[in-house]
Amino acid sequence: MTTQTAAKPFRRILLTGAAGGLGKILRERLKAWTDTLVVSDLSDLGPAQAGEEVVQCDLADKAAVLAMVKDVELILHFGGISVEASFEDILRANIQGTYNIYEAAHKHGVKRVIFASSNHTIGYYKTTDQLTASMPPRPDGMYGVSKCFGESLSRYYYDRTGLETVCVRIGSAFPAPANRRMLTTYLSYDDLFELLRCAAMTPRVGHTIVFGASDNREKWWDNREAAHLGFRPKDSSEPFVHLFPDSGNYPAADDVTTMYQGGGFILTGPQYKD
Amino acid sequence: MTTQTAAKPFRRILLTGAAGGLGKILRERLKAWTDTLVVSDLSDLGPAQAGEEVVQCDLADKAAVLAMVKDVELILHFGGISVEASFEDILRANIQGTYNIYEAAHKHGVKRVIFASSNHTIGYYKTTDQLTASMPPRPDGMYGVSKCFGESLSRYYYDRTGLETVCVRIGSAFPAPANRRMLTTYLSYDDLFELLRCAAMTPRVGHTIVFGASDNREKWWDNREAAHLGFRPKDSSEPFVHLFPDSGNYPAADDVTTMYQGGGFILTGPQYKD
Amino acid sequence: MTTQTAAKPFRRILLTGAAGGLGKILRERLKAWTDTLVVSDLSDLGPAQAGEEVVQCDLADKAAVLAMVKDVELILHFGGISVEASFEDILRANIQGTYNIYEAAHKHGVKRVIFASSNHTIGYYKTTDQLTASMPPRPDGMYGVSKCFGESLSRYYYDRTGLETVCVRIGSAFPAPANRRMLTTYLSYDDLFELLRCAAMTPRVGHTIVFGASDNREKWWDNREAAHLGFRPKDSSEPFVHLFPDSGNYPAADDVTTMYQGGGFILTGPQYKD
Amino acid sequence: MTTQTAAKPFRRILLTGAAGGLGKILRERLKAWTDTLVVSDLSDLGPAQAGEEVVQCDLADKAAVLAMVKDVELILHFGGISVEASFEDILRANIQGTYNIYEAAHKHGVKRVIFASSNHTIGYYKTTDQLTASMPPRPDGMYGVSKCFGESLSRYYYDRTGLETVCVRIGSAFPAPANRRMLTTYLSYDDLFELLRCAAMTPRVGHTIVFGASDNREKWWDNREAAHLGFRPKDSSEPFVHLFPDSGNYPAADDVTTMYQGGGFILTGPQYKD
Amino acid sequence: MTTQTAAKPFRRILLTGAAGGLGKILRERLKAWTDTLVVSDLSDLGPAQAGEEVVQCDLADKAAVLAMVKDVELILHFGGISVEASFEDILRANIQGTYNIYEAAHKHGVKRVIFASSNHTIGYYKTTDQLTASMPPRPDGMYGVSKCFGESLSRYYYDRTGLETVCVRIGSAFPAPANRRMLTTYLSYDDLFELLRCAAMTPRVGHTIVFGASDNREKWWDNREAAHLGFRPKDSSEPFVHLFPDSGNYPAADDVTTMYQGGGFILTGPQYKD
Amino acid sequence: MTTQTAAKPFRRILLTGAAGGLGKILRERLKAWTDTLVVSDLSDLGPAQAGEEVVQCDLADKAAVLAMVKDVELILHFGGISVEASFEDILRANIQGTYNIYEAAHKHGVKRVIFASSNHTIGYYKTTDQLTASMPPRPDGMYGVSKCFGESLSRYYYDRTGLETVCVRIGSAFPAPANRRMLTTYLSYDDLFELLRCAAMTPRVGHTIVFGASDNREKWWDNREAAHLGFRPKDSSEPFVHLFPDSGNYPAADDVTTMYQGGGFILTGPQYKD
Repeated sequence: MTTQTAAKPFRRILLTGAAGGLGKILRERLKAWTDTLVVSDLSDLGPAQAGEEVVQCDLADKAAVLAMVKDVELILHFGGISVEASFEDILRANIQGTYNIYEAAHKHGVKRVIFASSNHTIGYYKTTDQLTASMPPRPDGMYGVSKCFGESLSRYYYDRTGLETVCVRIGSAFPAPANRRMLTTYLSYDDLFELLRCAAMTPRVGHTIVFGASDNREKWWDNREAAHLGFRPKDSSEPFVHLFPDSGNYPAADDVTTMYQGGGFILTGPQYKD
Repeated sequence: MTTQTAAKPFRRILLTGAAGGLGKILRERLKAWTDTLVVSDLSDLGPAQAGEEVVQCDLADKAAVLAMVKDVELILHFGGISVEASFEDILRANIQGTYNIYEAAHKHGVKRVIFASSNHTIGYYKTTDQLTASMPPRPDGMYGVSKCFGESLSRYYYDRTGLETVCVRIGSAFPAPANRRMLTTYLSYDDLFELLRCAAMTPRVGHTIVFGASDNREKWWDNREAAHLGFRPKDSSEPFVHLFPDSGNYPAADDVTTMYQGGGFILTGPQYKD
Repeated sequence: MTTQTAAKPFRRILLTGAAGGLGKILRERLKAWTDTLVVSDLSDLGPAQAGEEVVQCDLADKAAVLAMVKDVELILHFGGISVEASFEDILRANIQGTYNIYEAAHKHGVKRVIFASSNHTIGYYKTTDQLTASMPPRPDGMYGVSKCFGESLSRYYYDRTGLETVCVRIGSAFPAPANRRMLTTYLSYDDLFELLRCAAMTPRVGHTIVFGASDNREKWWDNREAAHLGFRPKDSSEPFVHLFPDSGNYPAADDVTTMYQGGGFILTGPQYKD
Repeated sequence: MTTQTAAKPFRRILLTGAAGGLGKILRERLKAWTDTLVVSDLSDLGPAQAGEEVVQCDLADKAAVLAMVKDVELILHFGGISVEASFEDILRANIQGTYNIYEAAHKHGVKRVIFASSNHTIGYYKTTDQLTASMPPRPDGMYGVSKCFGESLSRYYYDRTGLETVCVRIGSAFPAPANRRMLTTYLSYDDLFELLRCAAMTPRVGHTIVFGASDNREKWWDNREAAHLGFRPKDSSEPFVHLFPDSGNYPAADDVTTMYQGGGFILTGPQYKD
Repeated sequence: MTTQTAAKPFRRILLTGAAGGLGKILRERLKAWTDTLVVSDLSDLGPAQAGEEVVQCDLADKAAVLAMVKDVELILHFGGISVEASFEDILRANIQGTYNIYEAAHKHGVKRVIFASSNHTIGYYKTTDQLTASMPPRPDGMYGVSKCFGESLSRYYYDRTGLETVCVRIGSAFPAPANRRMLTTYLSYDDLFELLRCAAMTPRVGHTIVFGASDNREKWWDNREAAHLGFRPKDSSEPFVHLFPDSGNYPAADDVTTMYQGGGFILTGPQYKD
Repeated sequence: MTTQTAAKPFRRILLTGAAGGLGKILRERLKAWTDTLVVSDLSDLGPAQAGEEVVQCDLADKAAVLAMVKDVELILHFGGISVEASFEDILRANIQGTYNIYEAAHKHGVKRVIFASSNHTIGYYKTTDQLTASMPPRPDGMYGVSKCFGESLSRYYYDRTGLETVCVRIGSAFPAPANRRMLTTYLSYDDLFELLRCAAMTPRVGHTIVFGASDNREKWWDNREAAHLGFRPKDSSEPFVHLFPDSGNYPAADDVTTMYQGGGFILTGPQYKD
């Protein structure tokens, strides 16, 4: 027996949404931080691995969430719906669910939450706009609206109870950019994980909103208000630039998918007239 | 018979929350603007008066809301819960309810909504802070969080569909200030009504957030970003100043009810540790 | 003989554009300020009246302008074209003409120019935007572009030579508002004259840009950066509000004449596709 | 005997500098606020009047100041040198003296100080600049530098101990403007007193910096950051405008007394080369 | 025959000012982007090389410009006068000429213009000022005034017609810095070309103003408002620093060539008194 | 005889506080800049080395300081007390002393001073705040207050006499970070020296305030307003990060040493109640 385990920064961390795209990635990596990683999802998570506890849980179930959060020191809240969906589904998963997480965190004295917010909180800014975190939200769908809810809810919990939160407005966290827009919004898995490390380990964060993008050449988001986190992305979309070669084929003036930072996402919801 | 009726600006206006404190006041006054005033509430509204249609309706009932909004030109959305309450009640009334209103408004081609937001969206700013509408929200309770939701939801509907909204962050709209704090937040009924008139009649408002306070001497809120509305309060809390005479009895340094703009409201919710 | 004349603030003032709409008004009023008022226009000005000198002059004629400016202490430069016109006409009258005025003013040691700029320097801001003078120009036509030229030219002359200028971005200076938009942009003749008095008499103005509007209820322009001028409009468009009664007939979403501060002006130029 | 005395807001107020120009004015008026007014000065103050205690005291005498502050609830610190003087005199009176006041206030649990700061903290801004209280100081002499010291010292005491301060950057508080500049900086005695009342009676002020000027037409100072104080000047320099009639006699470009907000004051100190 | 040509981003690009200092450099490099490069100048351009069309053209000749722009997809407008000159020459070449380019671009449906603006649009800011693109222009000569004209003209064309422009405020684009000031303003040819690439290839640019400087240590210009362009200079003036060794020979307080960002340029125009 | 000496930028530099922690470091390095380095301290400095003159001097001794400054071209003012101390000691050493330096510098025509200011001028900002140099000071002790004094005093001397100053708000200039906080505030000796070089050699600095920190990952201070100095730190606290490993042991909510940027320093002064 060694004392190695004792050197981990946390004894017990909860990761919600552990069966999701990013959740799967994080599930592997987070074990280095904690003696016990509680992984949770509505979907099946498979058997618990070493150092894990598995909780299949509907975030909208308040009692279940309360039980799950017990003894947890840090929550990475990646659960809920991460695409555009019906409002009712989003209401249940992202609004009721996020409330349940915060109320449970408060009741159990959790000190910090890392909240997976999204660039879709500000997707209706133009692609020629430059943003800082304190500019008013302009969500691009119900999903984005629910993330705005999480940001103001967590602000309240910090002001009222001292529970700290880092809201990470995740860009495009995929293995590689899938279209021209993602050259600007790309967030590599390594950079995401480093950002989460900064969010978890900085001694004080209060309530901080930070944009999650790699060090891509084209930028829409200026993280100066979160410089105390010390996040320095190491990756970039440059290796993928060749996939989308320079072109004079300018988009049409009324093409909303290039006009707004949210990109094609804003068309994935209900069919509003435009 | 005269053509006087024809001169009213609107044919059909919907007022939600018409049985509430402000709803009762507005129910009387709004008739001057419209041929038909649809008044709605979860509570009993009594019989329809001349020029009225009465709809008893749970805002959380999507189909009922959709039916109610038909043919309406303008909505004054004062419905829902207007005090601190359990999250579940607020979720149903203020979050699901407000969504239903906007979705119905969009589907029926309503052009504008006046949304009764609240100073409790920013109640955790200090009483020595000066605010403009574009500063980040800092709600002081679940009620305030739900109003932040309405503000970002309506921003989305404007960006996505062109449906205009004026969010009125109502101060203390009562017959008279009830405590020292309300000398700063007081909004007379006449000034409220004038502000609603500006919100309804200005040809274009896009998505505007405006603070609702009378011309009180002490101010926390600067409406410069809504100057296009042309709102000029005529009343003031001055006639009530004598009720709260000058005093050197300064509040204790840790008295949250004078430290924050939200005042005692922030203590009315669940008993968080402080 | 009395010493009354000696009490006038100036010995010699030049008013260009004296045959224009505002020029005619000012021609009468400016005599109170000066022993000699030089009135100039391309058009016929009629015979000189007491205290006047009349100079019919093409502002594009550099030598003529140089001669006209001799011994002048203050110039009110209202000459040139004040509506949308062909670029070539504007180039000659407003660009070459304004250059000639400044170069002559510099050569003759004139200390100050009041430059009749226009709200059309910023006409492409939205009617829901609030402006200060230091925000970037967004002209709404060639006329507006020429006024932007005058503003940057006069900035240069101040920085380089010390020649002071007040650029007055005149709103709608007419006897009465002619449409709904002008309720916001109206500048009464009395207020215009008072603004010119402030611009002329404040001991130091450096290079100041000020918006010219009466104290109308609806505002787009915030003159805080020119508060040293002490301009306080006394009039308002309120007496004319009844001409444009409250209405729920909201403009169409794509109606540029209500979308932009420049109003219908932006459609008066060449027929661009929209 | 009546209960009238009991209605006074304070039991014991200290006014330093009570023999100075403003001190004499305030000595009379402050009695309405307090059972006992302690008046202090280095100079002779004459005999104590009803409701007064007189303390002749050198503010640089730490022990004397400590004794004087005992049981005081509110301090109006108008003591020290209020004109340009040798640094050593200013050091003793304004820097050591102000430190002594704050340290004594802290030790005795005084809750609030109203500090007579000065427009000479910002006298090197130009007369075409518009200021808010949070802009960096630009003092125009040693006197101004000492007032900057008082502002940062009081900020420290508030942050460290909770002792509140309102720093009043007094303009030109005289019976009437004595020159053209004072049309902009004039502060009537009534308005000064009202400002002090706001500073004393507002329940919470934290650390607030406010400019002290009447409602003069020409303005350099924007009090928006102190709007929570509710200060509304009622007077203006307008009745005195006729003393300084409109004139085209513009100052020379290098005349520092009109170039900078500090006016002629900046030339009253040691004879620096310019 | 290969399909290599088809891979070029553009079919037809126009470069004006192709005989000028930068024009000659660009003429070589731009061929990589386009099947046909139309090179234009008032001066002789020599014979057309492969992939070129040569048009000797006075930009003030509206008809000639209109003809030249036909079928062009992208314009790099480097034509006109690029040093201080008489106003009449600048009027013709830079004002009339730039108007002709934009009007022709609009008429022929060109989608984007890259406009060679200049640091001389802001040359009267001090060398201790830090600038962003949205700060008011302060030109340092007639040349700079004409570039301000181009910036406001292009803003108008974008707002009115959708024609996009990137205004590049070029610093000192020479083989090497020629004096101490150019250590701050230096823009290497490679960095200029990369900036032009960003300006040409970014899918949407709207109307963007960007400063053109290499990654020099000393900076006056902050390009945060153009971060969407993704411009990252690779060069620096560091290799040339040894040419201007560290020195305590501070410039005289009234030496305008080091006081203002425009440097000695501001003295190259007409001999104004200073 | 060589010309090597002639190549040094300065003939005579004064370093005050040469016996202090940083003074000793600088004493060695500064000789490369100057023929003669005058080193001064209240403490014994040992014998003069080659190229040195040693002056043991109490900065509070005005005459001695005046004599010492004679013929000096540049002063690095590191003298005085650099820890929290009694106000009287700080008054003498830092306030009277700094005044003496500036008055002597002015009288002898010194052109520039580099003033060792401190991060303790802003130590009461939170560790989640991001600062620029123009934000209001919030000192965290008497030491910090005295540095605020030096900053406003030097601003005055620049405005009044043209004497330039760079105020360097030094972070934690030690061989290595001594605690977790210093990972953010660390300034390596090499980076300090490079910053001083920039401050000394930039041709014009006016009055510039710059934060002194190495290129540490976590940042509180944004030097954008001093970008004209060209300071680029080369070091970082990264090599020391392992000394303070990642940990979930979050500080208590009321732990002031992690709440405020000043860290434990704010508790080193007199024992105020908290």
